[in-house]
Amino acid sequence: MKKTYLVSLLLLLPLSLLATEVKSPNGNLVLTFTVEQGRPVYTLKYKGHDVIRPSHLGLELAKDKHASKGLKETDLMDGFIIKQETTDVKDDTWQPVWGETKNIRNHYVEYAATLSQPASQREMIIRFRVYDDGIGFRYEFPQQQELIYFLIKEERTEFAMTGDHIAWWLPGDYDTQEQETQQTRLSEIRARMQEAVNWGNSSVAVFSPTGVQTSLQMKTDDGLYINIHEAACLDYATMHLELVDAETKALTTKLGGGSNAYTPDPMPSIWPIPAPMTFVSHLTPDATGLKGCMQTPCTTPWRTVMVSDDARDMLSSNLILNLNEPCALDDVSWIHPTKYCGVWWEMIVGKSSWNYTDEFPSIKLDKIDWNSVKPNGRHAANNEKVMRYIDFAAKNGLDEVLVEGWNVGWEDWANMWKRDVFDFVTPYPDFDIKMLNEYAHSKGVKILMHHETSSSTQNYERHIKEAFELMNKYGYDAVKTGYVGDIIPRGDHHYSQSMNNHYLYVIKEAAKHHIMVNSHEATRPTGLCRTWPNLVGGESARGTEYEAFGGSRPDHTCILPFTRLQGGPMDYTPGIFVTKLITWSNNPSWARITLCGSLALYLTMYSPLQMAADLPEHYEQFDDAFQFIRDVACDWDESIYLEAEPADYITVARKAKGTDNWFIGGKCDENGHLAVVKLDFLDKGRKYECTIYADAKDAHYETNPQAYTITKKIVKRGDVLKLKEAPGGGFAVSLIAK
Amino acid sequence: MKKTYLVSLLLLLPLSLLATEVKSPNGNLVLTFTVEQGRPVYTLKYKGHDVIRPSHLGLELAKDKHASKGLKETDLMDGFIIKQETTDVKDDTWQPVWGETKNIRNHYVEYAATLSQPASQREMIIRFRVYDDGIGFRYEFPQQQELIYFLIKEERTEFAMTGDHIAWWLPGDYDTQEQETQQTRLSEIRARMQEAVNWGNSSVAVFSPTGVQTSLQMKTDDGLYINIHEAACLDYATMHLELVDAETKALTTKLGGGSNAYTPDPMPSIWPIPAPMTFVSHLTPDATGLKGCMQTPCTTPWRTVMVSDDARDMLSSNLILNLNEPCALDDVSWIHPTKYCGVWWEMIVGKSSWNYTDEFPSIKLDKIDWNSVKPNGRHAANNEKVMRYIDFAAKNGLDEVLVEGWNVGWEDWANMWKRDVFDFVTPYPDFDIKMLNEYAHSKGVKILMHHETSSSTQNYERHIKEAFELMNKYGYDAVKTGYVGDIIPRGDHHYSQSMNNHYLYVIKEAAKHHIMVNSHEATRPTGLCRTWPNLVGGESARGTEYEAFGGSRPDHTCILPFTRLQGGPMDYTPGIFVTKLITWSNNPSWARITLCGSLALYLTMYSPLQMAADLPEHYEQFDDAFQFIRDVACDWDESIYLEAEPADYITVARKAKGTDNWFIGGKCDENGHLAVVKLDFLDKGRKYECTIYADAKDAHYETNPQAYTITKKIVKRGDVLKLKEAPGGGFAVSLIAK
Repeated sequence: MKKTYLVSLLLLLPLSLLATEVKSPNGNLVLTFTVEQGRPVYTLKYKGHDVIRPSHLGLELAKDKHASKGLKETDLMDGFIIKQETTDVKDDTWQPVWGETKNIRNHYVEYAATLSQPASQREMIIRFRVYDDGIGFRYEFPQQQELIYFLIKEERTEFAMTGDHIAWWLPGDYDTQEQETQQTRLSEIRARMQEAVNWGNSSVAVFSPTGVQTSLQMKTDDGLYINIHEAACLDYATMHLELVDAETKALTTKLGGGSNAYTPDPMPSIWPIPAPMTFVSHLTPDATGLKGCMQTPCTTPWRTVMVSDDARDMLSSNLILNLNEPCALDDVSWIHPTKYCGVWWEMIVGKSSWNYTDEFPSIKLDKIDWNSVKPNGRHAANNEKVMRYIDFAAKNGLDEVLVEGWNVGWEDWANMWKRDVFDFVTPYPDFDIKMLNEYAHSKGVKILMHHETSSSTQNYERHIKEAFELMNKYGYDAVKTGYVGDIIPRGDHHYSQSMNNHYLYVIKEAAKHHIMVNSHEATRPTGLCRTWPNLVGGESARGTEYEAFGGSRPDHTCILPFTRLQGGPMDYTPGIFVTKLITWSNNPSWARITLCGSLALYLTMYSPLQMAADLPEHYEQFDDAFQFIRDVACDWDESIYLEAEPADYITVARKAKGTDNWFIGGKCDENGHLAVVKLDFLDKGRKYECTIYADAKDAHYETNPQAYTITKKIVKRGDVLKLKEAPGGGFAVSLIAK
Repeated sequence: MKKTYLVSLLLLLPLSLLATEVKSPNGNLVLTFTVEQGRPVYTLKYKGHDVIRPSHLGLELAKDKHASKGLKETDLMDGFIIKQETTDVKDDTWQPVWGETKNIRNHYVEYAATLSQPASQREMIIRFRVYDDGIGFRYEFPQQQELIYFLIKEERTEFAMTGDHIAWWLPGDYDTQEQETQQTRLSEIRARMQEAVNWGNSSVAVFSPTGVQTSLQMKTDDGLYINIHEAACLDYATMHLELVDAETKALTTKLGGGSNAYTPDPMPSIWPIPAPMTFVSHLTPDATGLKGCMQTPCTTPWRTVMVSDDARDMLSSNLILNLNEPCALDDVSWIHPTKYCGVWWEMIVGKSSWNYTDEFPSIKLDKIDWNSVKPNGRHAANNEKVMRYIDFAAKNGLDEVLVEGWNVGWEDWANMWKRDVFDFVTPYPDFDIKMLNEYAHSKGVKILMHHETSSSTQNYERHIKEAFELMNKYGYDAVKTGYVGDIIPRGDHHYSQSMNNHYLYVIKEAAKHHIMVNSHEATRPTGLCRTWPNLVGGESARGTEYEAFGGSRPDHTCILPFTRLQGGPMDYTPGIFVTKLITWSNNPSWARITLCGSLALYLTMYSPLQMAADLPEHYEQFDDAFQFIRDVACDWDESIYLEAEPADYITVARKAKGTDNWFIGGKCDENGHLAVVKLDFLDKGRKYECTIYADAKDAHYETNPQAYTITKKIVKRGDVLKLKEAPGGGFAVSLIAK
């Protein structure tokens, strides 16, 4: 009788009251989890505010002709009961090989629910880690007889928002993340989508009029900052988010027919569409439309929700890194932060070329005698120019010189469905690889290798061992990889499970050869650099090159640290001093940034790999300002975000690794900003030689970008610097301890 | 006025009279070619009989989002005029590295028509080579500004038959060619299709109810033998043929939705369907449904039509080899014909296992400590057994011992969409790779490597260099590769352009390491072994293994030489002496062949790589008959097909390489056969020690397969041997010159 009474009583209660509650270490975050009508549901609160309303968790599985051999088809969506719950607390501190801080604290409360699906005799664990600045959760699939292999039709992780938040978003796309960030209310995403897509990019593959990418930064009307992303995306498709809005009729499961167009999926899900203002996970498909091939034991990546009422916490959070596995490499002595220049910008602006000849409509690598072809006279990666860059790097303390266009194949390289594009080992006749490396080494400089794959990943994997052996032979220790254009094998996408596996394959093969990787156009990072710290950088967003392709908005660099940089550092290639390209090329584009704004990026856009992207002769024109690039560190013992607001401004102070010196940078949007920096982080009683690189009073990113002042003074702890940033400007400060 | 008059006159004539006529060297074959209403058309006659009625040639091109960058979309189907015609005669002789004959004559009349498509400003050449025993023709695309890259939607090469011929065919399938051959009239293909498909095979991908594979052997009611196949299929999709019959409503362009089912293509061609009894080419698609990515200059494979009124000419023809390029290897000293046995048959019949443990539902290679897992006790590739096989090979003069299941990963290896299946370098704990190779070499025997890829080609390519380096290290010089199961990357097919490129990639990489390749489940061969003679064998058809999977019909081996063997040798793995498997295993299957029939296969199924597939203990039981396998050569200076009729019987005499010894074999179907062999090919005045292995009088493939007689006598030129072959039987003769 007692049991019946209890059940009846329970039926009268809102089901959510039955949920398990998990609090973060400081109690600010409260997660609940329960199973309602067989479906897992969670919620999240921050200081009493709802952050995530009740949201379902689960995966739809795909049918397969090999089902009889162990591939199971029953969805992992419902029919669950909670079999076991465990809770744990962890608090430890670890040291990254390189990073923004010397120590990283990993402090969370862990809750894991083992769910049983009695009808299928299968089990799945949902594991949450609740931090003070956010949560991570993932699906885990233990090895079990009734779940050996499975195919994912779609992951259906919901993030139900509490209102019509402001969001900074990129269109969800399987192949590019190089759009300008959009700032709209959630309800406005659909109306903005068409305009938001970067139709000029060759690889556009938009899947839904309300699909967006992660990391997605939001702000609520009551001042909460919420960020949704993922961590440790390993051998799994990259996640997008599809917003259910008032007009949503069905959830998309894959890209529709035709290029550059989204059409409804012909196989709609049988599962109910959640309430409007809910994001639902949407994975990147393979060539057949499938989202994942799984073998137990396995897990999904962590799905992350960061939340705070202080925007600076979005930038200082280590949630994503903490959710990744510790360093997998025993020896990391060969990994080092790197400042570099390169034979690059003059090709990007169109003044010189990657390719060596214009003689043929197309080329086949095995059919050309490169010594007898007619040079086009515009090839940049030639001995003379590379030596000039080496001299410049040596003189200015830069570690390496990137050289693009050194190897044969650039005559016709992307988007022609040409598999055998490059061999990664044959230099053009005017690039003497042995001589140039010896010359560089004699001056204490290294050449930074470039492997553009043109997304022909099969071709790259066929050549990768010889390519890395060549690097070892000549003393290269870092490679910039590129994935421009459509993926070969055809039908695959840049962010699919197989491509994510490829990127990691390259990182692991590189590690075997003691090579650092800087991966361009690869999938957006999810903190894997903790586990493989030879992944020193990446692009995976709209980089400086777009300043030569029509330009990016001045606020672009004030949003990237909130979004793209959550998963790891970006090779943004900052440092454009001569912003009006027309002054030295035929390119009418111009960079929407002041010279001091460019200096600030070396601090606000954290990366252990920093380029000085402009031409040596441009830096020589502004040698006093270039001093900051010579001086600034790119590895840090401490970082303090002093001011931040998405797409408005960021101010950060960093203490250079192994020194007592600090560097401060501030960058703002088109509206300008007055940064007030209280130097209360300096050592007590110590004096610092302070050099301030500031926008001049009349500086402006469009009308007067090169107007700056350099001021030197002695400062001490407690002093306050008031630094006026021009529209599209910024500042940079160096503080050398005396 | 003269011109107008001429045009008017021409309009009154049947257009075919305007065609160019090309005769074969002996005049038996007559090809015509013309352009009618802008479309290329050809016909073929043999000794005055029509073989190919007027048939169109052309290719449909696919649209692509990168069209603006040089990918052209206009079909290469019509709008053509003949711009130039050239004719040439070639007559030379070449020596294969291994083969059926020492010398091969290559004698043909060549005709090439350069076609111009004025509207697109593009050119295409159609090149014909007219031999006395057939024709080859291909499309050639010179490098040109208006045709740099293109995508093939479908090749539309027609072969219009003159009647309702008898055909020996396999269902057209993108992933398997391991069906039993069907013998029907062309008009009966549709009705037979459902029954013809090997639904038990894991990789069935049938595309059309009238789709068939090549090589397609036919016979006309007036006694002509016609064979359609292709030669030199390089970086191009394998061709199938789709028959237009009375019920054809549209041509198929790709596999329909769902597995194991064909449905009409949703994008029918705009081009008219040809008349019934016409075959139209149908290429194997990639994951996106596309048939080919092309870059000029390039060509298609040769499309071949062999024709004769003597069935023996179908077997002795060198048309396919002649249409391939000469040997691409400078050093071929490491390539050698090979007789081998192997640890194989006992796993095929189910008596022992490839895998080492049954402990886990599935395994992940990087997570298993193989020394601590529980062995299943059935693992065949163990030291003791392998040494037993090495001893057997050494004793009997066999060159190599194949060992399957030596490397870790067999616990779960195919059709689970598991990419990282094998690493090809890690032996199971009970296979001491160093000791076994040393043991083998000490006895003058080599171990034959096995690389089952389980069709995870990406994984194989990632490991191939280490795998071949391991082979070099331990002294392996040949590898049997396998492609069981669905292709990974997902969506691709066994016979697509990309897979054909993969198979060739493996052959080329192997050649760099001086490794011979025997490729199973790869695409059917098209004579590439002329260019890469390290491709010493392949499967690509229903092999002996099917005798353990329910059995194959007795006539199976009397049709394969007419079809599968046209493109190159097959590793049929003959030599089953104990045909009733139940006598030594739990397998109820039985081989439908007599013991002497098995001996005959070493001659009728030409291959430089021949297995003695049965167990050593079975051969020891019949050691007198095994003497023939010990004696028989597998490389030849001369081959004479004495008798042949498709699916009925084949009798062939071959002269062993570099000797004066001859071997004769005869194999027949379920009806038995009396072979009358006149020894007029022997050296005049010379005596030969003749050993005849013949079916006993009461022998029968089902009721009395092991009944045989061995007769020795002395014979000379001009003697006649009358050899009675039992139902499903055959004979073998050795003639040792004295």
